[in-house]
Parts: sequence; C-alpha cells; structure tokens
Amino acid sequence: MKNFDYHQLNDIIHSRIRLAIISVLVAVDEAEFNFLKEKVKTTDGNLSVHLRKLDEAEYIDVKKEFIGRKPVSTYRLTKKGRKAFEVYVENLEKLIKGK
Amino acid sequence: MKNFDYHQLNDIIHSRIRLAIISVLVAVDEAEFNFLKEKVKTTDGNLSVHLRKLDEAEYIDVKKEFIGRKPVSTYRLTKKGRKAFEVYVENLEKLIKGK
Repeated sequence: MKNFDYHQLNDIIHSRIRLAIISVLVAVDEAEFNFLKEKVKTTDGNLSVHLRKLDEAEYIDVKKEFIGRKPVSTYRLTKKGRKAFEVYVENLEKLIKGK
Repeated sequence: MKNFDYHQLNDIIHSRIRLAIISVLVAVDEAEFNFLKEKVKTTDGNLSVHLRKLDEAEYIDVKKEFIGRKPVSTYRLTKKGRKAFEVYVENLEKLIKGK
C-alpha cells in the first residue's frame, strides 16, 4: 500500500464549493458571476468569499466591466489554477485508488 | 453542462483526513490505530477525533481488545461506510468531470 498523505491534497481546491467553482471554470472558457452562482448553487456572499480566495491564490482572473449600466464580473482560470487543479485531481485519484 | 451542486459531496467523507482514513480502510480488511496513524500521517489526537466522527456516522466499526497488557483498537469499514464512499466517489467524478 502506497503513501496516503492527505496533506498532498491542495486545501485551496479541496473545499467543496471551490472545487465546484473550479470544475465549472475548467469546463468553460469564462463565466459570469450569476452563471457560477446558478451552477454552484450558492449565495452571492458565499460565492464572493470563495472567488476572492481563488483570486488571492492566483488560480482565477477577474474581469470587471459595465454592460449598459450594469456591472458584470467575469471569471476564468489562470494557467496556475489549471495546473493546480490537474495536480489536485492526480493526487486525489492516488489517494482514493491507493495507487 | 450538468449540475455541479457541491452539496452532493458527503461532507463527512470529504474532509481530507477522513478521506485518507477511509481510503486506507477500503484497501484493507481492518487496520489498527497505529497503522492508520502511520498511513495517514497525523497525530494520535487528530486521528482519534476523526475516527470518532466516522464511528458516529456508523461508517466504521471499532474493536477494542488487549494484546498482552496493551490495549489495541482495530477499525474496519461498515457496509454503510463502504456504500457512502462509493456514492461519494461517483459524485466527485461527476463534479470534477462535469458528467
């Protein structure tokens, strides 16, 4: 049996809601706040908190603009975020499957 | 794109350390406390807390006995625990792969 060290699982990504956010962003090129909120099924406040944490880790980029008079924030994964997610999934599979 | 509702991920299992504990117990028939501690790389106190939580959820069974004068606790997954883990892994794959 191999090493099961859970510290190998990136804690920034492992949180259920952040994992859900990243899983959406992996699948699309970019996503607006309301689209993420609908997909991840959470509140504005909760989503904002976790997006900020992902932004601080430089895992996502945020683009803020006005469409008409309405502010719109659009999010995308950075290269660093995508790489971190790939490593996370590899380690998760190792952990779960004992490889 | 399908539903990414992160609430589908069982929070009892999703904790990194409990996920590591269960991943060990899935791979072996039963495991002693010290074996788990070594595999999961944590402290006695931390391991005890998380084993208790898994026990309360009826995901594991504990057998306590004396080997000579030394108390030994042995842990195994219950059917309920194994089933919960299987469902967790299915949901995790759905979430991550967007299926």
